[in-house]
Amino acid sequence: MLFEKDYFLTGKINEECGVFGVFNVKDAASLTYFGLHALQHRGQEASGIATSNKKEIKCIKGRGLLTETFNNRVIKELKGVHAVGHVRYSTAGGNEIENIQPIMVRSHKGDFAVSHNGNIVNAKELREEMENNGSIFQGTSDSEIIGHLIQREQGDFVEKIRKAVLHLEGAFAFVVMRENEMYAVRDHNGLRPLSVAKVDNGYVVSSESCAFDIVNGREEFDVLPGELLKIDYNGIQHIQYAEKTQLKMCAMEYIYFSRPDSSIDGINVHTARKLSGRMLAKIDKEAGDVEADIVVGVPDSSLSAAMGYAEESGLPYELGLIKNRYVGRTFIQPTQAQRERGVRMKLSAVRDIVKGKRIILVDDSIVRGTTSKRIVQLLKDAGATEVHVRIGSPAITHPCFYGVDTSSRKELISARKNNEEVRDFIIADSLKFLEVDKMMEAFETENLCVACFNGVYPTDLFNLGVQLKEEIENER
Amino acid sequence: MLFEKDYFLTGKINEECGVFGVFNVKDAASLTYFGLHALQHRGQEASGIATSNKKEIKCIKGRGLLTETFNNRVIKELKGVHAVGHVRYSTAGGNEIENIQPIMVRSHKGDFAVSHNGNIVNAKELREEMENNGSIFQGTSDSEIIGHLIQREQGDFVEKIRKAVLHLEGAFAFVVMRENEMYAVRDHNGLRPLSVAKVDNGYVVSSESCAFDIVNGREEFDVLPGELLKIDYNGIQHIQYAEKTQLKMCAMEYIYFSRPDSSIDGINVHTARKLSGRMLAKIDKEAGDVEADIVVGVPDSSLSAAMGYAEESGLPYELGLIKNRYVGRTFIQPTQAQRERGVRMKLSAVRDIVKGKRIILVDDSIVRGTTSKRIVQLLKDAGATEVHVRIGSPAITHPCFYGVDTSSRKELISARKNNEEVRDFIIADSLKFLEVDKMMEAFETENLCVACFNGVYPTDLFNLGVQLKEEIENER
Amino acid sequence: MLFEKDYFLTGKINEECGVFGVFNVKDAASLTYFGLHALQHRGQEASGIATSNKKEIKCIKGRGLLTETFNNRVIKELKGVHAVGHVRYSTAGGNEIENIQPIMVRSHKGDFAVSHNGNIVNAKELREEMENNGSIFQGTSDSEIIGHLIQREQGDFVEKIRKAVLHLEGAFAFVVMRENEMYAVRDHNGLRPLSVAKVDNGYVVSSESCAFDIVNGREEFDVLPGELLKIDYNGIQHIQYAEKTQLKMCAMEYIYFSRPDSSIDGINVHTARKLSGRMLAKIDKEAGDVEADIVVGVPDSSLSAAMGYAEESGLPYELGLIKNRYVGRTFIQPTQAQRERGVRMKLSAVRDIVKGKRIILVDDSIVRGTTSKRIVQLLKDAGATEVHVRIGSPAITHPCFYGVDTSSRKELISARKNNEEVRDFIIADSLKFLEVDKMMEAFETENLCVACFNGVYPTDLFNLGVQLKEEIENER
Amino acid sequence: MLFEKDYFLTGKINEECGVFGVFNVKDAASLTYFGLHALQHRGQEASGIATSNKKEIKCIKGRGLLTETFNNRVIKELKGVHAVGHVRYSTAGGNEIENIQPIMVRSHKGDFAVSHNGNIVNAKELREEMENNGSIFQGTSDSEIIGHLIQREQGDFVEKIRKAVLHLEGAFAFVVMRENEMYAVRDHNGLRPLSVAKVDNGYVVSSESCAFDIVNGREEFDVLPGELLKIDYNGIQHIQYAEKTQLKMCAMEYIYFSRPDSSIDGINVHTARKLSGRMLAKIDKEAGDVEADIVVGVPDSSLSAAMGYAEESGLPYELGLIKNRYVGRTFIQPTQAQRERGVRMKLSAVRDIVKGKRIILVDDSIVRGTTSKRIVQLLKDAGATEVHVRIGSPAITHPCFYGVDTSSRKELISARKNNEEVRDFIIADSLKFLEVDKMMEAFETENLCVACFNGVYPTDLFNLGVQLKEEIENER
Repeated sequence: MLFEKDYFLTGKINEECGVFGVFNVKDAASLTYFGLHALQHRGQEASGIATSNKKEIKCIKGRGLLTETFNNRVIKELKGVHAVGHVRYSTAGGNEIENIQPIMVRSHKGDFAVSHNGNIVNAKELREEMENNGSIFQGTSDSEIIGHLIQREQGDFVEKIRKAVLHLEGAFAFVVMRENEMYAVRDHNGLRPLSVAKVDNGYVVSSESCAFDIVNGREEFDVLPGELLKIDYNGIQHIQYAEKTQLKMCAMEYIYFSRPDSSIDGINVHTARKLSGRMLAKIDKEAGDVEADIVVGVPDSSLSAAMGYAEESGLPYELGLIKNRYVGRTFIQPTQAQRERGVRMKLSAVRDIVKGKRIILVDDSIVRGTTSKRIVQLLKDAGATEVHVRIGSPAITHPCFYGVDTSSRKELISARKNNEEVRDFIIADSLKFLEVDKMMEAFETENLCVACFNGVYPTDLFNLGVQLKEEIENER
Repeated sequence: MLFEKDYFLTGKINEECGVFGVFNVKDAASLTYFGLHALQHRGQEASGIATSNKKEIKCIKGRGLLTETFNNRVIKELKGVHAVGHVRYSTAGGNEIENIQPIMVRSHKGDFAVSHNGNIVNAKELREEMENNGSIFQGTSDSEIIGHLIQREQGDFVEKIRKAVLHLEGAFAFVVMRENEMYAVRDHNGLRPLSVAKVDNGYVVSSESCAFDIVNGREEFDVLPGELLKIDYNGIQHIQYAEKTQLKMCAMEYIYFSRPDSSIDGINVHTARKLSGRMLAKIDKEAGDVEADIVVGVPDSSLSAAMGYAEESGLPYELGLIKNRYVGRTFIQPTQAQRERGVRMKLSAVRDIVKGKRIILVDDSIVRGTTSKRIVQLLKDAGATEVHVRIGSPAITHPCFYGVDTSSRKELISARKNNEEVRDFIIADSLKFLEVDKMMEAFETENLCVACFNGVYPTDLFNLGVQLKEEIENER
Repeated sequence: MLFEKDYFLTGKINEECGVFGVFNVKDAASLTYFGLHALQHRGQEASGIATSNKKEIKCIKGRGLLTETFNNRVIKELKGVHAVGHVRYSTAGGNEIENIQPIMVRSHKGDFAVSHNGNIVNAKELREEMENNGSIFQGTSDSEIIGHLIQREQGDFVEKIRKAVLHLEGAFAFVVMRENEMYAVRDHNGLRPLSVAKVDNGYVVSSESCAFDIVNGREEFDVLPGELLKIDYNGIQHIQYAEKTQLKMCAMEYIYFSRPDSSIDGINVHTARKLSGRMLAKIDKEAGDVEADIVVGVPDSSLSAAMGYAEESGLPYELGLIKNRYVGRTFIQPTQAQRERGVRMKLSAVRDIVKGKRIILVDDSIVRGTTSKRIVQLLKDAGATEVHVRIGSPAITHPCFYGVDTSSRKELISARKNNEEVRDFIIADSLKFLEVDKMMEAFETENLCVACFNGVYPTDLFNLGVQLKEEIENER
Repeated sequence: MLFEKDYFLTGKINEECGVFGVFNVKDAASLTYFGLHALQHRGQEASGIATSNKKEIKCIKGRGLLTETFNNRVIKELKGVHAVGHVRYSTAGGNEIENIQPIMVRSHKGDFAVSHNGNIVNAKELREEMENNGSIFQGTSDSEIIGHLIQREQGDFVEKIRKAVLHLEGAFAFVVMRENEMYAVRDHNGLRPLSVAKVDNGYVVSSESCAFDIVNGREEFDVLPGELLKIDYNGIQHIQYAEKTQLKMCAMEYIYFSRPDSSIDGINVHTARKLSGRMLAKIDKEAGDVEADIVVGVPDSSLSAAMGYAEESGLPYELGLIKNRYVGRTFIQPTQAQRERGVRMKLSAVRDIVKGKRIILVDDSIVRGTTSKRIVQLLKDAGATEVHVRIGSPAITHPCFYGVDTSSRKELISARKNNEEVRDFIIADSLKFLEVDKMMEAFETENLCVACFNGVYPTDLFNLGVQLKEEIENER
């Protein structure tokens, strides 16, 4: 399960960033604000919007939620018909001001702004090479690398971007705004989502399609793997920059990153989750080994899968866990002695529902296991007699190098323990994950990156691969 | 349906206040903080906590969410083993600092603090009488009246409270904290909820039982209608102050105020809602007049009822509407031309689910009808072919004088229009409310105040009754 | 010497509150804001403004500087042509929200707002009496007592105020605003200042005349001791409510409270201070016992006296101490080991001026002596060879009961030590105070309260006198 | 005269930035905080501190005063024994987050942080050249250029800096911090000040010596023109990087930028100002053409000069103008009709002093003349019969290209009007500036940049010179 931000609990997968762009629509800043608002679940650490009034670019950004940086007055300052915005999820070590996006590049040949989602696996190599050539980096974000690469290349701007992208290895989906043009790029494996829609006579670009509704977007389509779009007053030009492409969309986007009302590469997120729940139920039915009274999902990201499980199994779907809507970023930390309170401030068990019940608890994933354990405890404290945990995705055994912050293998409980040990740790009565092939069968697609489940990475890993090998070696 | 606070939409019922008290438990302020956090849905306009260190009372309060006034440093300043807190929902005209609770009474005979939830219908009469006797009122809250009444009466403190309460007419549930005692009072109709639980060797008092879990409360019970509890180091003393009592719990608490994991007067809120949904389905089945594909609830308060409807009808329960978790209090207001954006910033239709579907849309109530209309529109824009609205409560035709802010009858759409006209206004394909008797049958209780549905008020209405009569007259 | 607020140093006299009122002038809230801004030196802990739009009164108040509570948007909310405002200085124990002024009294007979400066010495007696009669007090401010007294009295409003004031003993200057009237009152000893001026066709009332300039006030005059002014659309009505009056203006207002550009009861503050400096120089000249090179004043309040000393003595006036303009309320506290830094963050010695010099250091007063000691040290560290301290007022030996927060006698260094001992404590080479008679000779008036210098209090002291007697007894 | 920041008035010279560095002293962040606090008058728009714990560099920065970004908690996060800080004054167009200093350069060869004060006149040329070579600039600050130049050069770090500096033309004083070294550089004309002192076994570097006192600095000295200091654990290494050097210290630093308790290149600021006042008086005495009653200085920067004038002339120095200590950054803007209030919120005339008097008003400079006019008006409104304005510096006729924001010649009143016309504009009864030679005579040095007074610029002006020529041409 995923909390918006894990303040009390550790060991959970972190969320992704969100990018949003507007080309040639009135009040572009305001539209970007609404778009980023719909993408706020992808990042709450910082946000920024840059606008172009066709002559110059202005950029405002700051820490925290969108609402902490932007209000009516600030949005008014951001005049223009083009805009690019960003909501940022950052890891502990990188919350410096220099990393807040969009990254601005100020140049006598024309300024540009970059908003990026993903992770460049050859970032270290690229930085060192450019530093050796005299470039300076002020922060540690990959967007700054993209800016440098573009600036360094020769040719007209579309050519500069095309050449720059060829240096990048990893997962990326980014938008570049110039005074009168916009560019949208997706990596050649399509690891990160990026969609486009029409609005009035212009265009919007977004990490997730859920942001199109609020801006009245229509005629949506996905940027293709290895594709570079140039958007200007003449419309959209599609450029396939990579020779070899494949679609390996991050499975975690379906499993819990994205909003249920988003569709990515033709698959609706809610539907995919529900199908994963159905598949879990089918497997249980076939095995015939679990008797239960009710199905409960961990809010919010696992409700769809729980509903699917309930439908398939015929068991009643119940609201056994409630999420507190007022969990914010500045909460008082419980004292050491009250550590249990962390999960209880976010989730409550509905005693009258769970008391005396055998429960199928559907969750989306298990990372370190500590949160799962606390939730099972919560249900048992409220009187549940049995808690059978069903996970709508495979066990995570490998680190992600493409933007999902699961750190090292050591923290992944399933990398260190077998299924029975994990079940024991989370004090569940039974535990099942969805195997990779079953998940693909459920989602009805094989166009997924499942590296964190099986260690098959779709890109070269550069020095990261070395790290990983060492980690695996060290474990022996 | 209920939004936390209606910033863009008008015409919705407002929420209630929440009170919380702690007697003789370590770190009382911290416990009160966690308790109020669980009650935050009852009020977001202001909050306050007063603590007693057995010798003196200190009170800190401020505007906005709990987290805007309290942090670790502030909580540390509030030393003591007793505490009383409040989260306030205030109407537009009353957000002055003087109305933030707890209300402190500073006296050479000993200070006390009052936290109150409800509405005193003879407030005007009481104030005028006391003002004529020289009392001054600094704000417009009912709590201030309670403070005055207590101070004015003679006898020991429990006697003063007992006498004071006899002057009050209306709905009230309040807690009074002195240096070394605590009092909890509920009106003789039990219109507002108030529960007690044990924690360690002390006690906690709360508007809703959902707050007990986080503080490890046990052995919960409800304060009875017309009961006054005195809590001190000897335990709890139960005093029945009123001769004639009955239980007429506000039906709206079950329908949407309270959290699903709360139980009030023996009935779990989620269960009650689910039963109302089942009843709606039964009625539809008996009538046999609706064919539909899926059941969708308006998040969050109507999900339980929708689940009940789905179970009873056999139709699939679907996540057709998604609620944005980041709707806060300081959002940019959409321009006049973008007014539709209001509802869309909070709710999104899941296009892949609702497209081409005939939908049973379950909501908890309709006040002015404007929000309902926008939600129906949202679903139809997303491709729903039919939207059949089912309301888990009766049509609201009368104003509430007990704390539910529905203003005058003129604003209540069902007070002015018949069922067909309302259906037409909200552009639904069909519309059904749950009748009063069917709701009671569903909830399996008749101990409900249903005045807003049928105009039968359980208390004297004083001058308010005159207003109402005039209103009804004027309508003719 | 006086710092705006003593964050690092203890033992200094605290400042007074400031009141400001506007009757019948356009944009009254804005005018009050500007007026309070000119009075901000009298209190930085909280501020408030209430306005009347002729029909109802609205009040906004909050903690901290004026700018922390008020901005253009807030001022716009405060519509009306009448206003009353307050800046509050509060002692450590009294910073509760309930004590922020103006105090509002809401009544069915008409609301009113009270802003008060001073100290009621029979407050305890009045509160107890009213509490026994059933009144409740929410805070601990004297203004609340004034509100109660007014409300309790019978008759028309001017009669109610007149009767109420007769109960008050002590130092007070307050303004009451009703929907369409304003009242200004000063105690019968005139212990606290209060002035009036015309603005357009209306009036403004202010604690100090320095606030009149910014609002274009003209035809200024002081409210007389024992006088009650009623201001309405017919003009000003002067009512002498007290039979026996005398002018005993607080000497400390001249010595350091008030701004140099204010005039109180006909005497300009800067002029009075300068004359005190001249008198100090005359005394030194007559004694012929000090040789020095330069005269240095402690900024800001002692600069006038230092200039007077320099002129009279013929010694050069030098800028030997500089005050940092950015000392604010939220500064980082130096660690224990860096305690000296406190005074150095506020004051710097100009090394090139003071090095090798024999200095006459002119200050306005000594309370505990710790700050004086640090300043002398500062100058000696910067190379001064001798520092001769000259104080522009007598030694403070008695507590003030009229609003000047000097706490108990024990903290007053001159109440416990003789002149030589004090000199030794502050490590000065010589030390002289101005005797009471010499100060009066310098100021050219005997209409001063000098109780803190000689223990002769102009009012009955009630229980406070008892405290004092005990204190003096205990010292023996 | 200079206001801390001109919110209501336009046309005034802006202030400079301040830099501060600490090498090898415990609690370096805390020390830097105190040092920057003493330099806060040099910039209030933004501030930042970077610290090195010998292994890595952490940087925190933000908008507004030091106290808006830093508190005890933040300072604690900045661990280390080395630090570099900055307070920034920015012009309207450059308040983007990218321009806040220190500028961080993150590199695999080791990070470094740059804090800079001054203006690089060949910035445009350098940027274009580096951009053409593929460098990207994120902001518009000169510090970013310095970072790029250092990074681009080859050799060890001291060599990289030495080579980098040779490309810079203009006014600069900057500090570079690496993990275990610090560098301090001053331009070859010494246009901006930079001083060093010892603290314990380490060193501090500061724009002004006034910051040394609070950190217990000793053995102060100035970095020489054209000098580069390398500070490491072995001590300080002095490197003269420029072949041709001269001392042309900005005269404006003495006239009003710097704090009176600072000494720059051996001259105390207060003393210099006082001598300029004396010189003005001598000139008046020799001319014998002015009769006056009192001397008044515009607070705070002109008080020293006014004191000098008074001493030399024998006229009494008087506190005729009072400055409000609470003028902050978030004040309510007076409406158009109340524009006069701007100057009155900051300055008040002491009516009792100036009434009926012939005044010598000493100010430090005149830029556009509008503020001077308002101050003269203020005094006349308060009853002054004559106001004779004496300026402690020459008439400003040329723009500054070295960091003093006087924009174009067109805004400089003395570039367009002769002395009599200026006098007429500011409604003074007479007006005299101090001629360049007289100022040098007063200051007892010729080591001054006086380009803004006579157009003789000590550096090549690049394209700026072209602009200037065009401006002068256009005026003809």
